Amino acid sequence: MTETAPKIVVVGSGAFGTALAAVAAANGNPGVILLARRESVVEAFSETGRNDDALPGIELPQTLKMTVDPTVLSGAAIVLFAMPSQAQQEAARALSAFIGKDADVVTCAKGMERASGRMLTDVLEAELHHRRIGVLSGPGFASDIARGLPTAMVVAAADIDRASFLAGALSGKTFRLYPSSDRTGVQLGGALKNVLAIACGIVEGAGLGESARAALIARGLAEMSRFVLAHGGDPDTVRGLSGLGDLVLTATSHQSRNLRFGVALGQRGSASGRAELVEGAFAASVAARVADGLGVDMPITQAVAAIIDGKTDVTTALDQLMSRPMTRE
Amino acid sequence: MTETAPKIVVVGSGAFGTALAAVAAANGNPGVILLARRESVVEAFSETGRNDDALPGIELPQTLKMTVDPTVLSGAAIVLFAMPSQAQQEAARALSAFIGKDADVVTCAKGMERASGRMLTDVLEAELHHRRIGVLSGPGFASDIARGLPTAMVVAAADIDRASFLAGALSGKTFRLYPSSDRTGVQLGGALKNVLAIACGIVEGAGLGESARAALIARGLAEMSRFVLAHGGDPDTVRGLSGLGDLVLTATSHQSRNLRFGVALGQRGSASGRAELVEGAFAASVAARVADGLGVDMPITQAVAAIIDGKTDVTTALDQLMSRPMTRE
Repeated sequence: MTETAPKIVVVGSGAFGTALAAVAAANGNPGVILLARRESVVEAFSETGRNDDALPGIELPQTLKMTVDPTVLSGAAIVLFAMPSQAQQEAARALSAFIGKDADVVTCAKGMERASGRMLTDVLEAELHHRRIGVLSGPGFASDIARGLPTAMVVAAADIDRASFLAGALSGKTFRLYPSSDRTGVQLGGALKNVLAIACGIVEGAGLGESARAALIARGLAEMSRFVLAHGGDPDTVRGLSGLGDLVLTATSHQSRNLRFGVALGQRGSASGRAELVEGAFAASVAARVADGLGVDMPITQAVAAIIDGKTDVTTALDQLMSRPMTRE
Repeated sequence: MTETAPKIVVVGSGAFGTALAAVAAANGNPGVILLARRESVVEAFSETGRNDDALPGIELPQTLKMTVDPTVLSGAAIVLFAMPSQAQQEAARALSAFIGKDADVVTCAKGMERASGRMLTDVLEAELHHRRIGVLSGPGFASDIARGLPTAMVVAAADIDRASFLAGALSGKTFRLYPSSDRTGVQLGGALKNVLAIACGIVEGAGLGESARAALIARGLAEMSRFVLAHGGDPDTVRGLSGLGDLVLTATSHQSRNLRFGVALGQRGSASGRAELVEGAFAASVAARVADGLGVDMPITQAVAAIIDGKTDVTTALDQLMSRPMTRE
């Protein structure tokens, strides 16, 4: 890496933000800074060299810098927004004055704005006028990325050359980013796969077997494609890393919080009544509402939303899904 | 089911054949016969009501008939060929004289003929002149099907009306077959997913993590699509139950023999030198050879074939896969 390595600031010291910062620093870029909210995270890192709250036991590169001072955003060429979906708007508003006009700002969350149903790129564009907004998504567990296991994800920008720049700046030997110009397809794939992972968890929790789960994933991918197409995205994107790949990862691994949430739902038979904080629970009701408005057929997403909202129980919803008329494959 | 229920003979008393026969009989069709090769299987069934060699502990419907007498094929409207891929030609040759000219013969194996690289529908058409040849494939573990867990698979025929007839005759409340007219896409998806499952097993056995496996599945699906397209099939088929759905099932479940075979390869680091009897091991070298001939780019399949054939080791093959040039997603 030469002295022209771009300055990169990752905002958000959760597991995913920490992993992205760690891998970018490990690539030899000396200008990588993790911007945390809590001073305790910065202190722990300076003492232990780790962020055990987010990534227990994983040693982070010594060249990584960590701070709570937002003025580090000044001069950053790349700013990664790695906080949860519902926190992105507030963070953009709070940090807008610190981010340069030439920065590429990349949303790394997988969701949609709950109140409005907007995509996160639209949320950030409204807050961060005139900056380029990109999307980073795909199948990568934070711990796999941070441990240096092979991971392939996607970074999208409206301009493919910008996406290639971002991919080059953030990729390393083990962490590979593929460029895309389909921001819509990439981010909606990331949002919807969490809903389908909950559905797969419900099927698992209800004891319906791995064959049923596989069928659900295949039918879910078709559903995801229709939603992306209705938003002007490319259905081919959904069939790649950021749609299918991420869906497979989230829907088959117990490392996934969304899957575990679904398993608990399937075992219990109905919603608990408590507020649910997994990304997929937010995305389910948003996507179901938006799909209704657009006239997109999304039976699995609708079923998950109805279960979470307490409008139906698991047995009734599964019976309805299974008794849908058989169409051609 | 009325008296007009079609007579169905399932040839092959392995796990999958037994499961298909069981579910067809459980649907209320009194004319379902399982044609076994070994008398011992028939005797065990008449004593225990089970086929414990194939499906341990699973009670089969009392209305199911089992025999070793090939003359039961006479008058069968539907004949399911449920023996392994490499045994289908010999079985077709041996049974051709017993199968009526009006029968629908459906291959239920997932593979290609090793010596010639032909699809199984081509193999059966050459042996069973003038009969209609269909394909049954998709994500269904025999034990899930036989236990009455929800399962969705695909049945394809050259004529979609024939496929709908077969789907109607074989489907029940828990086992749903979707009709398709793309025999090529349906059967090649079934053959290739076994190769990709071995690749996923290798990645797992080598300790590369679930993110790497998810990326491999996404890239593998693209590879599968190219192969199907080169054979005149429809890439959309590959994105459905019989391609993607089956790939996900086989590549993520330890019930899959192909996955377990791959895990052992990944742990050991190279081929054992013993003959490998999983379907995917046959399919890997066949598909790699055919892809070479057709000029189709299939790096994952080629890597699996090279490892199984002892031409490379796991570490070298994975390094090559990881260092391929990055293209657009």
